[in-house]
Amino acid sequence: MGIENKAPGKDVSDEDLKTKFPLVALKADQVRTKFKVSNVEFGGELIPIMAGPNTVEDRDMILRTAEAIKKAGGHILRAGAFKPLSFPYRSEKYFELREEGLRYLQDAREATGLPIITECMDQNKVEAVAEVADIIQIGTRNMQNYALLIEIARTRKPIMLKRHYGASLRDWMGSAEYLLHEGATDVILCERGMTIPHTHRSSSRFSLDLQAVPAAKEVSHLPVATDPSHATFWAPWVAPMSLASIAAGADTIMLEVHPDPRNAAVDPLQPIDFDEFVALMKKMQSVAQAIDRRVL
Amino acid sequence: MGIENKAPGKDVSDEDLKTKFPLVALKADQVRTKFKVSNVEFGGELIPIMAGPNTVEDRDMILRTAEAIKKAGGHILRAGAFKPLSFPYRSEKYFELREEGLRYLQDAREATGLPIITECMDQNKVEAVAEVADIIQIGTRNMQNYALLIEIARTRKPIMLKRHYGASLRDWMGSAEYLLHEGATDVILCERGMTIPHTHRSSSRFSLDLQAVPAAKEVSHLPVATDPSHATFWAPWVAPMSLASIAAGADTIMLEVHPDPRNAAVDPLQPIDFDEFVALMKKMQSVAQAIDRRVL
Amino acid sequence: MGIENKAPGKDVSDEDLKTKFPLVALKADQVRTKFKVSNVEFGGELIPIMAGPNTVEDRDMILRTAEAIKKAGGHILRAGAFKPLSFPYRSEKYFELREEGLRYLQDAREATGLPIITECMDQNKVEAVAEVADIIQIGTRNMQNYALLIEIARTRKPIMLKRHYGASLRDWMGSAEYLLHEGATDVILCERGMTIPHTHRSSSRFSLDLQAVPAAKEVSHLPVATDPSHATFWAPWVAPMSLASIAAGADTIMLEVHPDPRNAAVDPLQPIDFDEFVALMKKMQSVAQAIDRRVL
Amino acid sequence: MGIENKAPGKDVSDEDLKTKFPLVALKADQVRTKFKVSNVEFGGELIPIMAGPNTVEDRDMILRTAEAIKKAGGHILRAGAFKPLSFPYRSEKYFELREEGLRYLQDAREATGLPIITECMDQNKVEAVAEVADIIQIGTRNMQNYALLIEIARTRKPIMLKRHYGASLRDWMGSAEYLLHEGATDVILCERGMTIPHTHRSSSRFSLDLQAVPAAKEVSHLPVATDPSHATFWAPWVAPMSLASIAAGADTIMLEVHPDPRNAAVDPLQPIDFDEFVALMKKMQSVAQAIDRRVL
Repeated sequence: MGIENKAPGKDVSDEDLKTKFPLVALKADQVRTKFKVSNVEFGGELIPIMAGPNTVEDRDMILRTAEAIKKAGGHILRAGAFKPLSFPYRSEKYFELREEGLRYLQDAREATGLPIITECMDQNKVEAVAEVADIIQIGTRNMQNYALLIEIARTRKPIMLKRHYGASLRDWMGSAEYLLHEGATDVILCERGMTIPHTHRSSSRFSLDLQAVPAAKEVSHLPVATDPSHATFWAPWVAPMSLASIAAGADTIMLEVHPDPRNAAVDPLQPIDFDEFVALMKKMQSVAQAIDRRVL
Repeated sequence: MGIENKAPGKDVSDEDLKTKFPLVALKADQVRTKFKVSNVEFGGELIPIMAGPNTVEDRDMILRTAEAIKKAGGHILRAGAFKPLSFPYRSEKYFELREEGLRYLQDAREATGLPIITECMDQNKVEAVAEVADIIQIGTRNMQNYALLIEIARTRKPIMLKRHYGASLRDWMGSAEYLLHEGATDVILCERGMTIPHTHRSSSRFSLDLQAVPAAKEVSHLPVATDPSHATFWAPWVAPMSLASIAAGADTIMLEVHPDPRNAAVDPLQPIDFDEFVALMKKMQSVAQAIDRRVL
Repeated sequence: MGIENKAPGKDVSDEDLKTKFPLVALKADQVRTKFKVSNVEFGGELIPIMAGPNTVEDRDMILRTAEAIKKAGGHILRAGAFKPLSFPYRSEKYFELREEGLRYLQDAREATGLPIITECMDQNKVEAVAEVADIIQIGTRNMQNYALLIEIARTRKPIMLKRHYGASLRDWMGSAEYLLHEGATDVILCERGMTIPHTHRSSSRFSLDLQAVPAAKEVSHLPVATDPSHATFWAPWVAPMSLASIAAGADTIMLEVHPDPRNAAVDPLQPIDFDEFVALMKKMQSVAQAIDRRVL
Repeated sequence: MGIENKAPGKDVSDEDLKTKFPLVALKADQVRTKFKVSNVEFGGELIPIMAGPNTVEDRDMILRTAEAIKKAGGHILRAGAFKPLSFPYRSEKYFELREEGLRYLQDAREATGLPIITECMDQNKVEAVAEVADIIQIGTRNMQNYALLIEIARTRKPIMLKRHYGASLRDWMGSAEYLLHEGATDVILCERGMTIPHTHRSSSRFSLDLQAVPAAKEVSHLPVATDPSHATFWAPWVAPMSLASIAAGADTIMLEVHPDPRNAAVDPLQPIDFDEFVALMKKMQSVAQAIDRRVL
């Protein structure tokens, strides 16, 4: 061709780390980001557990769930107030509580002291979400919605950036760089399952890319999370993949916990119930201790 | 488990078409959407060619390119005014002209009469883009940015919805349903290359999923585009994949054409030059006629 | 790390072409391989059509099919005599005729003059298959079964090497190099559908990677085939993907044609019937002529 | 279409388990396969570690490596005597010792008492390999080479069946069913890295699909292995992915250990050295104990 064959970069090169992701890049001193949300430290010895339902279904369920999480030793309450489906219709069973849901999350925090992580997916809702959230979640669908990333970064709130289910390590780091470049400092990277050629059940859509955990920690100083519930889409695999996440070096774990999984408003195959959560907390603590970290 | 094993739907079932994508779904009468942008008809016998540079680099280059496209028989001028990279830095070589770029696109339309397609990726820029664009493009990164989709749909402008490079047919249709549900009627679906396990050059990142063309036309009445330039990332493959797109049933083709590809501000491996565009228009016309359609 | 970060080569570099695939590589003179099977030329202006059922079901069906293919202008009869399923059980409906099937293929050749392509997947059957086959097919499952490749190459028969559904361009070329290195000269490369993250129907498993056609022809002088029937797994998409294959530069097409597709012993969704084959031959001829080639 | 839309089965259904994989399927009694190779038990509390170099490079190196593995507590010696590259050429640095390599493996077993696992990839070498190997490995490239599978099964030796890097769970189980159907009983399933759309370094080709571990154990009673060395292709990630494999429920781990990784004849980025192996054995023991299993 005569045209030089420049690789556009599927992978993260050392040159990329210097010129394209300087704020995200792990430096020679190997210093890793640590920060506190209330009194929960991310990036240190503790592996904080973020747990709760996919969606705030009503005030009572979110309060009951928050209490169960608190009691089992969980650190952060997760739940979506804004949670659109991948098509524009709702059903009697599935709906979004939106601002009303945010208020219930606030109530749950007041009742239990658990900090809140919840998703923002609309530039016009950043302010409303930032008032309630202790950590603002950016979901898979908006990983490269740079306009939203910039507005969320400006709130100076802690942020969890989920990797898009089809995104490269490089694109994920690029989105994190947008956040740090705009002034965010307390950012968590979250692997939540990739689309791969072969999933494992007719009900599964993703596979947790655990190799992304050491890969992300090799290039970046930011703490790395995994979301085994969403990745597996299948409650029986949540425990093994949570333990594997800890063993692989994940700094925090997000879990879907529901008072009555079979009757969850959405994705009923993936949440674990309160008893399963209690049991899993204990197992995670054992594995964490085996690698000199802790969950409790 | 006891829990019923409900498939969450990677594929589009007949039931999905009825309850989740009723507006997008092709009906028993097989009537397909046709609409005109200025006097260019989409969805009919004509296969409109949307061509131009990745980015509006300056006023002169976009005017010269528009004239070359017009002269070769192209129907729509494409170019990005907002065009962020996947990390937040710019270089002397690469920058965005933003609102200034929109003005130059307006100038190009006035000079040539070619309608404009350009991308909007910020809820705060929908109005500005809608003033200039004849077709608003939603890019791969924002395919599931529903807040943006809704605001763009409300402009009532024609829209081209690019498929995310990792998205299923079902998620793509879901995003189109958001647009139609919000009142958009003139919507084009665009396949622009998928991330697959094995691309074909160190410089290639995607592979054009041509099978998605008959697949999308089987489930939906909306016209289907392909973008061979972005999918191949390699100028020598643009011609064969454009011809293949037409033969596979694509209703419109988007092409990257640049006055001096080797010196393009971004992605210099993929644009074709004016002479190559002239030659390709003739070849596309031959293949289109072989299946009873036309490009010229 | 200190360890040099050597890329093991997912893609085919210029260096690879010199040192690893010297026999397969397209040289500066751009001379492409042409060869004849009986009087059917591969690699030239003609695009030979290889058609027939997945499996030799009985003597009568293969004779009837061969006659229909011959009459419609098809060039080569394809059918499997050895055709194991992906698990070791057979049913009343599905079985392999094995050596008996080879004899029926011989009868079909005698009756119609059509050369035969059929698969060999066992080192102990190479001789038996080579006695009957005019072209020996190496299937997706055995693309990297080098012991088999070497034995088949030694027969000096023409060979069609199918790309594994998960293989890189580089691994495919490496397998072709094994064949040429062992003395084979008349080798066809066949793309037959890749596993990708998102297929398009619950019944589809692969997507035809048409971009692999210009990619393979860029690096190699060998003729390139596609197999739209197997790739799409859905009869209605066979015609568009066959036309697209020709437009993309495929040198030969393999098609599944069955006297009664709904009652085919295996994969009943993908074959087209005799009338559909006649119609498709005409359409392929039109598209081929549009790019200065021919099918008839 | 009128044709019934039968899913050909990418995933493993309950019906599949009954009719297509009855021998592989985990039964209602949940009894899992256990067997001993010499006095090493697979499928029980112990997680046997199979370690050694990619390739038998010379007699001295394999003896030294075997002693180091033995001393560190490893259970099985792995090394390839037959190890073709993905193209047919050899170099001064890279070659295969073949039958000579088998003899050195025999010497290493005599010297250390470690049982041997080594690969067979040629129907004509089954007998020779079976004479030396305590476990015969079937590699990724031959997972669906049924002729080879059948001949290896007939030796009645223990077998480790690696999953093809592009294979579904269903195709993997189908190949295991071929082995059991032919009379093999002591079969290990090994996940060794999948081709996914985005790997994590320019030097990486695969990603370990750890979710396949609980998935395989949900459908089958056979013990499940992982191969973190080959999957990661990067020594620094071998430890985290080995620990993660154990936490995810893997029943045995295969590791690449080399006396001088940087000068390994092939794939020098992935082996760990003797000291790293000693350290990893200790860490694996800690994680194994945390889930009530053991490595030592």
